[in-house]
Amino acid sequence: MMKKDTIVALSTAWGTGAIALIRVSGDEALEMTQHIFESRKATPLAQLNSHTLHFGHIVETTAENKTIIDEVLVAIFKKPHSFTKENMVEISCHASPYIIQTILQLYSKMGARYAKAGEFTQRAYLNGRFDLAQAEAIADLIAADSEAAHRLAINQLRGGYSTTIKTMRNDFIQLAALLELELDFSEEDVEFADRTELQKQINTLEITIKQLAESFRTGNALKNGIPIAIVGKPNAGKSTLLNALLNEEKAIVSDIPGTTRDTIEDILIVEGIKFRLIDTAGLRPTNDTIEALGIERAKQKMNQAALILYVIDTTTHTITEAKEEIQNLQKELKNEYLLVANKTETLNNENLEAWQNAFENSLVLISAIEKKGLENLQNKMLEMTLKDGFDKDKTIVTNIRHYESLLQTLEALEKAKNNIAKQVSTELIASDIRTAIYHLGAIVGEINNEDLLDFIFSKFCIGK
Amino acid sequence: MMKKDTIVALSTAWGTGAIALIRVSGDEALEMTQHIFESRKATPLAQLNSHTLHFGHIVETTAENKTIIDEVLVAIFKKPHSFTKENMVEISCHASPYIIQTILQLYSKMGARYAKAGEFTQRAYLNGRFDLAQAEAIADLIAADSEAAHRLAINQLRGGYSTTIKTMRNDFIQLAALLELELDFSEEDVEFADRTELQKQINTLEITIKQLAESFRTGNALKNGIPIAIVGKPNAGKSTLLNALLNEEKAIVSDIPGTTRDTIEDILIVEGIKFRLIDTAGLRPTNDTIEALGIERAKQKMNQAALILYVIDTTTHTITEAKEEIQNLQKELKNEYLLVANKTETLNNENLEAWQNAFENSLVLISAIEKKGLENLQNKMLEMTLKDGFDKDKTIVTNIRHYESLLQTLEALEKAKNNIAKQVSTELIASDIRTAIYHLGAIVGEINNEDLLDFIFSKFCIGK
Repeated sequence: MMKKDTIVALSTAWGTGAIALIRVSGDEALEMTQHIFESRKATPLAQLNSHTLHFGHIVETTAENKTIIDEVLVAIFKKPHSFTKENMVEISCHASPYIIQTILQLYSKMGARYAKAGEFTQRAYLNGRFDLAQAEAIADLIAADSEAAHRLAINQLRGGYSTTIKTMRNDFIQLAALLELELDFSEEDVEFADRTELQKQINTLEITIKQLAESFRTGNALKNGIPIAIVGKPNAGKSTLLNALLNEEKAIVSDIPGTTRDTIEDILIVEGIKFRLIDTAGLRPTNDTIEALGIERAKQKMNQAALILYVIDTTTHTITEAKEEIQNLQKELKNEYLLVANKTETLNNENLEAWQNAFENSLVLISAIEKKGLENLQNKMLEMTLKDGFDKDKTIVTNIRHYESLLQTLEALEKAKNNIAKQVSTELIASDIRTAIYHLGAIVGEINNEDLLDFIFSKFCIGK
Repeated sequence: MMKKDTIVALSTAWGTGAIALIRVSGDEALEMTQHIFESRKATPLAQLNSHTLHFGHIVETTAENKTIIDEVLVAIFKKPHSFTKENMVEISCHASPYIIQTILQLYSKMGARYAKAGEFTQRAYLNGRFDLAQAEAIADLIAADSEAAHRLAINQLRGGYSTTIKTMRNDFIQLAALLELELDFSEEDVEFADRTELQKQINTLEITIKQLAESFRTGNALKNGIPIAIVGKPNAGKSTLLNALLNEEKAIVSDIPGTTRDTIEDILIVEGIKFRLIDTAGLRPTNDTIEALGIERAKQKMNQAALILYVIDTTTHTITEAKEEIQNLQKELKNEYLLVANKTETLNNENLEAWQNAFENSLVLISAIEKKGLENLQNKMLEMTLKDGFDKDKTIVTNIRHYESLLQTLEALEKAKNNIAKQVSTELIASDIRTAIYHLGAIVGEINNEDLLDFIFSKFCIGK
C-alpha cells in the first residue's frame, strides 16, 4: 500500500501573507530540492541532519541562464522522523502567488506530483504514524471553532479514543479465537467458549459500544453546534431574544406580528460550547401563504432542536394561559423545552415571583429588550443540553463514519446474541463476531479498503 | 533605535489551509515559548542549536488544569542568525482559527505584543540585516505577479541596486569632504576642489542619476503593468480585440455601435511582462450623455497610455480614410500609437499587401474575431513599449519613493552647478552637495527619521 512517488503542495492558505510553506514528501524529496536549492554550505541536503533549517535561494536553471526565484528557508526531515515518515522538505518562501506557482512547477518538472487533498496525512497513516481515527481528528482539529470541538479533536488526535476502540476489538478477537478453536476440534464436539459466559461478555461490550454510539448525539452537537430553536406566538420577542443573545442586529425586529418568516440561524458560543440558535416564525393560524410556509419550517426546526426555548410574552399572557400553551406544545413535540418568560421589564416583584413559582425550574425570566436574565438563560441552556456535564475525559464520538460503524457493530452483536440463544452452530456465531470485529476495526483503520481511504482523505485540505 | 520588546504575529495568510506559521521575535522569544511548549526532550529551548526544529505540544496551563492546544513544530533561530537578527521562534501549527487565536493570546498574556504590519522586516533593517531599499523589495516581491516584476524585486532584494546608489553617495561624500577641507582652511583661501573638475564630476554623476530616474517610467510600468489603450471608432472591433487578447469574454460585444461605455481594464502577461489593456468607448460625436462621458474617459485613458492601439475597421475604411483618421489622432495626442487593421478575414491578399505597404511598420493586420495576427500584435506591443529591450542586468527604479528622492537629488545638483558657475562661496556649494547626499541616502535608509520608517513599513503585511 506504500505509494513511493514524491508529492508536493502548498500547505498554507492562499492569500495575502508574509510567508508560505510548500511541502514535499517522498523518496526523492531531498534530491529534487538539491537541484533547485543553493546555499553557502557545500554539504548536500541528504547529508545534513534531520530537523534542521537552511537559508538559501531557490533557483531556476535553464540552458541559457540561472534565475533566482526566492530567498527561502528549507527545513529537512529524514525518514522515518517526519510527519509522513518519508523524507520531507518544507520550504518557507515569500507568500507571492508568482513565487509559489514557480516553485511548485519546478518540482513538477522534476517529476513530483501535486498532492491530492489530505494525501500527506494519508501517507502518514499508511506508514503507521497514527491510526485512521487519529488522522480524521486532524481535519476536525483544523475545522474546530469552539473550545469544546477543539478539545474533542485534540483528544481523538492524541489517541485516547482509539485506545478504547482497540481494547474492545481485542476483546472480541479473543472471543472469536475461542470460537474458532471449537471449529478446529469440531469433530470432538467440545465447547471452549461457555455460552453463558460468552453472552455475558458480549453484553458487557455491547453496553460500552451503546454508550459510545449514544455519545455521538453530544459529540455531533459539540462539533457542529447544539441546535436550539426559539419558538413562540407572534410578537413574543423571539427575534429580540436572538439579537440580544448574539449581541448584534441579526434578525429584523418590529411590532408587527409575523415579521420573521424565514428561519434565521447563527452561532453562539457559551463557555466554549457552540450553539446554533434558530429564530423561527411565530406560531399562529394564518392565511398568508409565505407566513404559513415559515410556520411549517418553524415546526421542522422544533423537531430537530436539542432544546426549544418557548418564548412567552408576560404582558399579554396570564400564567394560566402560558400553562395551556405549554400543554398544547407538549402534545405536538417530544423535545425538551424551556419556558422563557419575556418582557419582564413591566412586571413587579410579586408578579415575577408568581411566574417563577408556577413553573419553577422549567422557566427563566428575561427582558430581551433590556438584555436582562440572559446569563441565567445561557446557564440553563448549557445545563439542559449537556446534562451529564461535559466530562473532559469521557470518550465522545464526533464522526458520523464512526457512529455508523458502531451501529453496524451493535447489529452484528445483536445477531450473535440471538444465534447463541437459538443454539445455532458455532460457525454462525463466529461469523457474527468477526463482522463486529470488522466494523470496530474500520473506525481505527484496521481495514484494507483503498476506496474508503481515498474518500476519507479527500475531505482534507490540500497540503495536509 | 533598537526595540527590545518581543513581538508575535501570524505570518501566513488567514484562511483554509493545513498549516499556519506564527512568528515570535525579541529577547524573550525563547523563554516565552519555553513556558507553553512541551516536548520529549528535556533540554531547554535556549540551549538547543539555532536552525533546529522540535516536535511537541503547545499547552495552556492554568491553576486547575493543563490543556493541549496543538501538536506543533517549533523552529528556533538564535540571534544574530535570524531574519530579524533577534532571537526568533516560528511555530508551525494546524491552520485552525481557534488554535491560532489561542496561541497568539498565550504569547500576549506573557507580555508579547502583536506585531505591527512590516515590523519583523523593520527590525531586520534596524538591526542591519539589509538596507531600506532591500527591505522595500520584500514587499514588492510578495506583490509581484509577473516574471518581470518578480525579477526587479529579487534584484533589488539582492542589493545590486543599493550598491549603485551607495557608490554614488560615496563619490559625493568625497566631493563634500574636499569642499569642507576648504572651509577649514578658509582663511588661507585655498581651493582643494578644482571647480572645473568638480563640475565635471557632478555632471558624470548627474547623468547616472538621470538615467535611474528615467528608468522609473519602465520600472513602474513593469511593476504595475504597462498601460495600453484600445481606441478607435465605434464598431471597429475594440472589445472583440480585448476579449481575443485575454482569451475570455471580458467585454460585452455587439453589432450596435456604442456598446462599450465604461472603460474596461484587465491584465495581460506577455513573455513575463505585464500589460494593462484598457478598452474604451468608440470615438464619435454623440448626443447620448452616458456615451459622451465614456468618450471623455477614453480620451483621458489615451493620454495616460504608454501605447495606443488604434483599431480600424478595414471593411468600412479605405486606406486613405485610415490615414486621415491617424492624422487627426496625431494632432490631439503625443503618445505612441500602433495602427491595428481589423476584420482582415474579408480581405484578399492584394488588399492585405496594400494596407501593409501603406503604413509599413506602424501597422499590424489582425482578425480579432478569428484570433489571427494576435501574436504579431503582442510582439509589437513588447517592442514598442520596451524599446531598449528589457535588460536584466540594468538597474531599474520601481519605487516611487526612490524616484522622488532621485528627483530631489537632481534638484540639489542643479543648484550646486549653478552656484559653482556663479562662483558663490564654498559653504553654499558644500550645502548643496550635502542635500544631494541626504536624498541619495534616504533611498537605502542611511537616514534617521523614525516617522518615515514607520510609514514605509506600514505598507507591509502583518507577520513580515
